[in-house]
Amino acid sequence: MITLASDFPSPYPAAMRGVICSRSDARIEDVAHDFPRQDVRAAAFWLREVLPYFPPATHCVVVDPGVGTDRSAVVVEAGDHEIIAPDNGVAIPVARELASEGDAGAESGDGPGTDDFDVWEIDYDDAATASNTFHGRDVFAPAAADVHDEGGPAALDRCHRTGDWVDLRFPEPDVVAKGARGEVLVVDGFGNVITNIPGDSVGDSDGVRVDDELIPFRDAYAARDPGDRLVTVGSHGNVELAVNRGRGDEAFGLSVGDSLLLEW
Amino acid sequence: MITLASDFPSPYPAAMRGVICSRSDARIEDVAHDFPRQDVRAAAFWLREVLPYFPPATHCVVVDPGVGTDRSAVVVEAGDHEIIAPDNGVAIPVARELASEGDAGAESGDGPGTDDFDVWEIDYDDAATASNTFHGRDVFAPAAADVHDEGGPAALDRCHRTGDWVDLRFPEPDVVAKGARGEVLVVDGFGNVITNIPGDSVGDSDGVRVDDELIPFRDAYAARDPGDRLVTVGSHGNVELAVNRGRGDEAFGLSVGDSLLLEW
Amino acid sequence: MITLASDFPSPYPAAMRGVICSRSDARIEDVAHDFPRQDVRAAAFWLREVLPYFPPATHCVVVDPGVGTDRSAVVVEAGDHEIIAPDNGVAIPVARELASEGDAGAESGDGPGTDDFDVWEIDYDDAATASNTFHGRDVFAPAAADVHDEGGPAALDRCHRTGDWVDLRFPEPDVVAKGARGEVLVVDGFGNVITNIPGDSVGDSDGVRVDDELIPFRDAYAARDPGDRLVTVGSHGNVELAVNRGRGDEAFGLSVGDSLLLEW
Repeated sequence: MITLASDFPSPYPAAMRGVICSRSDARIEDVAHDFPRQDVRAAAFWLREVLPYFPPATHCVVVDPGVGTDRSAVVVEAGDHEIIAPDNGVAIPVARELASEGDAGAESGDGPGTDDFDVWEIDYDDAATASNTFHGRDVFAPAAADVHDEGGPAALDRCHRTGDWVDLRFPEPDVVAKGARGEVLVVDGFGNVITNIPGDSVGDSDGVRVDDELIPFRDAYAARDPGDRLVTVGSHGNVELAVNRGRGDEAFGLSVGDSLLLEW
Repeated sequence: MITLASDFPSPYPAAMRGVICSRSDARIEDVAHDFPRQDVRAAAFWLREVLPYFPPATHCVVVDPGVGTDRSAVVVEAGDHEIIAPDNGVAIPVARELASEGDAGAESGDGPGTDDFDVWEIDYDDAATASNTFHGRDVFAPAAADVHDEGGPAALDRCHRTGDWVDLRFPEPDVVAKGARGEVLVVDGFGNVITNIPGDSVGDSDGVRVDDELIPFRDAYAARDPGDRLVTVGSHGNVELAVNRGRGDEAFGLSVGDSLLLEW
Repeated sequence: MITLASDFPSPYPAAMRGVICSRSDARIEDVAHDFPRQDVRAAAFWLREVLPYFPPATHCVVVDPGVGTDRSAVVVEAGDHEIIAPDNGVAIPVARELASEGDAGAESGDGPGTDDFDVWEIDYDDAATASNTFHGRDVFAPAAADVHDEGGPAALDRCHRTGDWVDLRFPEPDVVAKGARGEVLVVDGFGNVITNIPGDSVGDSDGVRVDDELIPFRDAYAARDPGDRLVTVGSHGNVELAVNRGRGDEAFGLSVGDSLLLEW
């Protein structure tokens, strides 16, 4: 199985799909093609949340603000998965997650993961027909098809192992007395504000102060009336600021990268 | 075959897809993931319009404003199809349709359907890892994979038949002298205003009064000039208010739930 | 393999998918369902860019402002591909491309293509259940399934060859002294402005005058700072006006159909 993830507007993902189908009979499943445009950190977050639910697969990821520069293209082997991506860190958080899980399924999730994964660089200089603007089609999709069909990057002449790759780590929250100072990592399509603060740090509080305002801490959106705010632990395990049937980002006035103080 | 339908923004549907792929080799086809957010009636309408065109399949439907409350999760067996959904009525209109068709294909369509379908409740209390915010991933996707692979809910220990389920019926139009008072059921992505008034009730009129204004009644959008309004019978069989190459909702000033009087 | 392309909002494409699955076991891959609404020329451009990357397949294309009028439905055989589409020219540019490539892959691309393709008309008058508003579901999807499974239109009684079909050609640029006067063909989802001027006509210039303003000519978006404008050659081979990590259409004030003068 090959999965596809990008920030490409339609119909660019279809060109990648065509290239893969021309080289491989692999089943293709879409992860997303509407990641926040050229936001490597947001894509890295969502990949870490979603890819571990898939069975072993070859994942082709293209969120690539550096296309056409000298950034490398890499294959990351982690657990029984391979991730083909630009060398900008987008594949690293999920690789840490997959490496720590091994074959054990998607349950672990909470830990920081391990660095027990391998990175291979793809030599595409001789890809004579590669455009400088669409490596998704000309570099990453062919590599994904070939890595899948050949059983891994080791079987490809154009891949060599490297210890020189771009890392990406999410910011850690600062633990303070009965609280934490954190950051908004991403806002999802519902408008839910996802922070970097682990949900299990909140304990069994009944309310949480968000920048000095007390907000009910609940275990489900629908535990509040429509339009009312809540703090909850999202399906990703982090503290999330939300509005039942509404947009948390608007109600709390928070955007990606904003810092916030939670006290409980 | 398993189909997926939800009101989930990307990449949440991909997590469901991953869970299904981890448990089943079933082919997966998307129905839609942009149903109007948490609008159970609109989703019920579209499912009734679309699912009968599929061959026998297991349909996983998640439009679920009550996630995390004590609402049940159900499997509805209708014809040769199974629908896994929250117990909020979203699966019932299409179940009536599928039950009345049996194996006879999608042609009938107009009738009210029958209640010759079975409802099973899914016990997910022991799904220890279920989040309270993402039952699509933690409850419905696993159930869809298992119902598909085991051949139905009867084979699953965690399913038991129930007669206690939430119904959903679309509002009936009031037939008046040479006309009908009805309601806007949904507005599609083109802006076409879909009412609850059956198209065959209009007869062979040349024009229809919509709230006292005479509008041409035509059998195709392009029978009017671009930008001009028309009344037509949509592909779903109901009366539809539209604009050729434009948005009917804006031109008629109508939204979901508005009532309107049609005279012919 | 059957591919699907349309300008249909969700869930209309799913009804087509259901119809195809009910008639054929063919694998289905989406090309796009968000082509600019009822813009036949834009769809024709994107199909020419994308479909040649697919292996031989049956492509079902529905961008159809004339649905319900007396426009024909056609099957175009080109190379080893078949395209099912309304007879409005949408399938012709890609047919020229596929016909000139034969089995040689997607590399040629630059030439004007050849007319070495066959057009078949689909007789759907006896499709008694065809709606007048949704031929995607009632005419094109069934035809795609049957053309795929029967190995071509020649095997279908309802298809007959025709020499009478609607052509579509993109406007040619006017070559002027050290420059070209061209037109905006499409704007992609990134906001990149794609012109009808071939990229190889620019030569090795360092800058290009766009309507009298000198803009750097670069081979990658990231060769400019974020927010800065550039002229480049897009992945389709044409001159493109762009902004690194921004929208070229807004920065240059250009829309589809606008003419522009480039000098180098």
